[in-house]
Amino acid sequence: MRTSQYFIATQKETPADAEVISHQLMLRAGLIRKLAAGLYTWLPLGLKVLRKVEQIVREEMNNSGAIEVSMPVMQPAELWQESGRWEQYGPELVRLLDRHQREFCLGPTHEEVITDLLRNEVKSYKQLPLNMYQIQTKVRDEIRPRFGIMRSREFIMKDAYSFHANQDSLAETYQAMHRAYSNIFTRLGLDFRPVIADTGSIGGSASHEFHVLANSGEDDIAFSDSSDYAANVEMAEAIAPAGERPAPGAAMSEVATPDLKTIDEVANYLNVAPAQTVKTLMVAGENEGELVALVLRGDHQLNDIKAEKLEGIANPLQMADEAAVRKVAGAGFGSLGPVGLEVPVIVDRSAAHLADFICGANKDGFHLKSVNWERDCPLSRVEDLRNVVEGDPSPDGKGKLLIKRGIEVGHIFQLGTKYSEAMNANILDENGKSITMIMGCYGIGVSRIVASAIEQNHDQHGITWPIAMAPFELVIVPLNMQKSEAVAQCALELYEAFRQAGVDVLLDDRNERPGVKFADMELIGIPHRLVIGDRALADNQVEYKGRQDADSVLLDRSEAVDNILQKLGH
Amino acid sequence: MRTSQYFIATQKETPADAEVISHQLMLRAGLIRKLAAGLYTWLPLGLKVLRKVEQIVREEMNNSGAIEVSMPVMQPAELWQESGRWEQYGPELVRLLDRHQREFCLGPTHEEVITDLLRNEVKSYKQLPLNMYQIQTKVRDEIRPRFGIMRSREFIMKDAYSFHANQDSLAETYQAMHRAYSNIFTRLGLDFRPVIADTGSIGGSASHEFHVLANSGEDDIAFSDSSDYAANVEMAEAIAPAGERPAPGAAMSEVATPDLKTIDEVANYLNVAPAQTVKTLMVAGENEGELVALVLRGDHQLNDIKAEKLEGIANPLQMADEAAVRKVAGAGFGSLGPVGLEVPVIVDRSAAHLADFICGANKDGFHLKSVNWERDCPLSRVEDLRNVVEGDPSPDGKGKLLIKRGIEVGHIFQLGTKYSEAMNANILDENGKSITMIMGCYGIGVSRIVASAIEQNHDQHGITWPIAMAPFELVIVPLNMQKSEAVAQCALELYEAFRQAGVDVLLDDRNERPGVKFADMELIGIPHRLVIGDRALADNQVEYKGRQDADSVLLDRSEAVDNILQKLGH
Repeated sequence: MRTSQYFIATQKETPADAEVISHQLMLRAGLIRKLAAGLYTWLPLGLKVLRKVEQIVREEMNNSGAIEVSMPVMQPAELWQESGRWEQYGPELVRLLDRHQREFCLGPTHEEVITDLLRNEVKSYKQLPLNMYQIQTKVRDEIRPRFGIMRSREFIMKDAYSFHANQDSLAETYQAMHRAYSNIFTRLGLDFRPVIADTGSIGGSASHEFHVLANSGEDDIAFSDSSDYAANVEMAEAIAPAGERPAPGAAMSEVATPDLKTIDEVANYLNVAPAQTVKTLMVAGENEGELVALVLRGDHQLNDIKAEKLEGIANPLQMADEAAVRKVAGAGFGSLGPVGLEVPVIVDRSAAHLADFICGANKDGFHLKSVNWERDCPLSRVEDLRNVVEGDPSPDGKGKLLIKRGIEVGHIFQLGTKYSEAMNANILDENGKSITMIMGCYGIGVSRIVASAIEQNHDQHGITWPIAMAPFELVIVPLNMQKSEAVAQCALELYEAFRQAGVDVLLDDRNERPGVKFADMELIGIPHRLVIGDRALADNQVEYKGRQDADSVLLDRSEAVDNILQKLGH
Repeated sequence: MRTSQYFIATQKETPADAEVISHQLMLRAGLIRKLAAGLYTWLPLGLKVLRKVEQIVREEMNNSGAIEVSMPVMQPAELWQESGRWEQYGPELVRLLDRHQREFCLGPTHEEVITDLLRNEVKSYKQLPLNMYQIQTKVRDEIRPRFGIMRSREFIMKDAYSFHANQDSLAETYQAMHRAYSNIFTRLGLDFRPVIADTGSIGGSASHEFHVLANSGEDDIAFSDSSDYAANVEMAEAIAPAGERPAPGAAMSEVATPDLKTIDEVANYLNVAPAQTVKTLMVAGENEGELVALVLRGDHQLNDIKAEKLEGIANPLQMADEAAVRKVAGAGFGSLGPVGLEVPVIVDRSAAHLADFICGANKDGFHLKSVNWERDCPLSRVEDLRNVVEGDPSPDGKGKLLIKRGIEVGHIFQLGTKYSEAMNANILDENGKSITMIMGCYGIGVSRIVASAIEQNHDQHGITWPIAMAPFELVIVPLNMQKSEAVAQCALELYEAFRQAGVDVLLDDRNERPGVKFADMELIGIPHRLVIGDRALADNQVEYKGRQDADSVLLDRSEAVDNILQKLGH
């Protein structure tokens, strides 16, 4: 492709309303343009990247045995009423009336449509398993669309749905999808982690999210520095510290801590580390009016999801109000502690490992020192209550945990029978008995991958695409092409040679200053650049620079093609 | 691909609600399934065909210099209000409110969005011409969706929009699109005609439709038997018969024709051909209350579009009511004629060439015989008023016209400044003067092509795809594969050999009777078939049959691959 016949729409200014770097760079490099809030047109360069991602997703899905279909965007309300989602889904679901006043929605996902299709087409376990996918425009009316295509109202998704006669078959396809996703993100050249995810309120038995690691991510991912283990911070198990709890030291004593509100203030005042204190939180119990105390180490954070799943605790989690707390503990939030408390006490594993710790005295303005479990206070129930922190041992026993931010770009999910049961998607099993099909679902945010790749791969000059996603692999920049016959001829010759060799090459034949061309091509992020100029050409040389190289190097003109082909692995 | 790992969903029964053959065959062959009225899921086989069509469209659009983009389906009402279409468009436009009660529509086309994009991005004539296209899901809320994907509510369209600084540039791109479309339909293997089309109420200066010829088409296409000339019947010029008008014979006389209502009845009664009679129609004139008489040969049909474009005639055309006619002519509809009429008379070219003709006497129950223009009745205005008929001379002077039915699958249009003017899409010209961009638009009904190809290519067994559109090029059908080691081995060997050679090959390894497999593969329409059976294999032979061959032939197993590759042109 020649830039003169293409559509290059780079911008110098950083758009004011673009908060994250990928949004800024996608606008500046001319990959997208905004049509309305959360609605973007993909310009030629952006679409080219998107198509490359699509193609890799498609190839790996096909390799995994999944079969491509294409379902409508408009879906009749009836099916959503059958599954129950018509009522459950909030205003993110775009609903509309057709000319005959019949209700439709624009699909954010297609569980109902595919379940309807397969309950009609599949009659016997012999036809299963089936895994069907599509790469398609989805619509979700985000309350606050932002970050460009990262959280837009229209987006491209690969959604797959598998159907099975038994759980083993689902587990097998689930593993195949896990492998396919790993292949996809590996081929795309992204630093990613498949992380154990919460199955949340949808139910279902197993779920992994695939995250691209990037500082701007919205999720905290905990992963081992020496194994494959990775999980959402909310999901990562915090295991008990190694070894025995130290033996008690000095006797427990009360100390006045007037006006000290926070753990840090108390620890500082008493000259101990926050890790040597505990904090006591009160939450609603399972039954109306009951309270339960949760005790964590002072430097740890409560994990709501872990807590609300525990027996005896209200789900969803509700923090107790101070009046209720004062009634049972005799003190306010800043002075609570487990000693002498007359409500059930659940202690986090790490807090339970402490000896000679500090806690509130259940008396406003006082704390207890040298408190020890069992000696001073019963330790009846120990659970995993907290978020993991960096340096925690990995739950799989291998190495320590690191925590980084991640952008969710994929999700695989053992869905079970939620939809197939509601929609009577039954088949006959080996014994001629009617059974409900078991389902899995598997999504990839295809357009979101483009943004997350940029979040992970950029520098001060622009985008630094992984080669598989780059809009072009190579750009040839002739200097002064309009005046120098030699430059023009060399540039065109090389351009043709690379085209013949199947390289996705751009010839920047615009009549612009070299600086403008260099800046544009770095902003756009083309991984390899060849500059053709009169001076080097006099010595039969051309100038090569990789997108992230500090300096350019001279190549013999005659070796340039082979050299670059080698770099590209063609 | 192996059928055992694929999704074959053929049906024996012809679905009751499928009126046209393409709809029936697409359901029976398992290419699509209905989700709701006018909404279809593309099953794997159908999607494979659709993707092949898309790919050819994309390649030829790219070859023509057009650049691919992708615009949102959801479009803000504001842009449509700017162009005026928000008011003009009827209930075919799906309108909806987002969660903030802002108005949107689902795009049936994208003139507004692309014009908005380019008025922001293009500032100078130097950036033009630009031709941008997308291949995308469109939505149109048809009042009566029918014929499957032929007239559905969601469909895939390739829409392109070109922008120019002057008319010459538009004409050039228009020609490039004409060539690209011809290449596309030629590569698809379809019998098609680019036909001169009415530019209708949209305005604009030139327009061609591309029609696939098929008996079930909704449009009548007139085309020359010896040149490229083709036009919608409404648009085809009916030229004057060759030679001079014959000289008058007998004197004009009146004849009673009691109770004879139609041309055929009168002609029959008077023992002349209908072509020797004329009929006189009364229509509203340009000014309130005026009538104009239109005179055509008895065997010809009035062409409304031609008539209403004439000076002096109300546009749109309005037929006069009988009371008004009686008032000026003194007779009712069945007895009108040009002789002595006191309203303006416009005579069709063919009617004007008659001598000694029959016409109404402007007296109920009477006709005139041996009427001659000028001798008996003035001939002041002659125009082209009628539809062409088969056998008419081609308007380009080459050959005679044939008329066949066509299905519109493409449309190219010199749009002019309708949108760019309404939306202030201005640029600076060579002299630094602000001018309005000139536009062209170019559509292809990508999904509709699939249905129209079937309308044109089918037989009693099913679809007979042109090779470029076939879901698979070749099917290998092993007989009794589950029991015969030799058959299984040969089938797998050939399957692998064809795959290696890049053939899109299907291996029908289902455990089904041969008859079922043959019928399925003929219904699906795979162009080439190899049957592997023990008997032929004993002689080292396999059985080949082309989809439309009467009989199969035996091929040496060792030559089968080369032989088929040759047939496929690989």
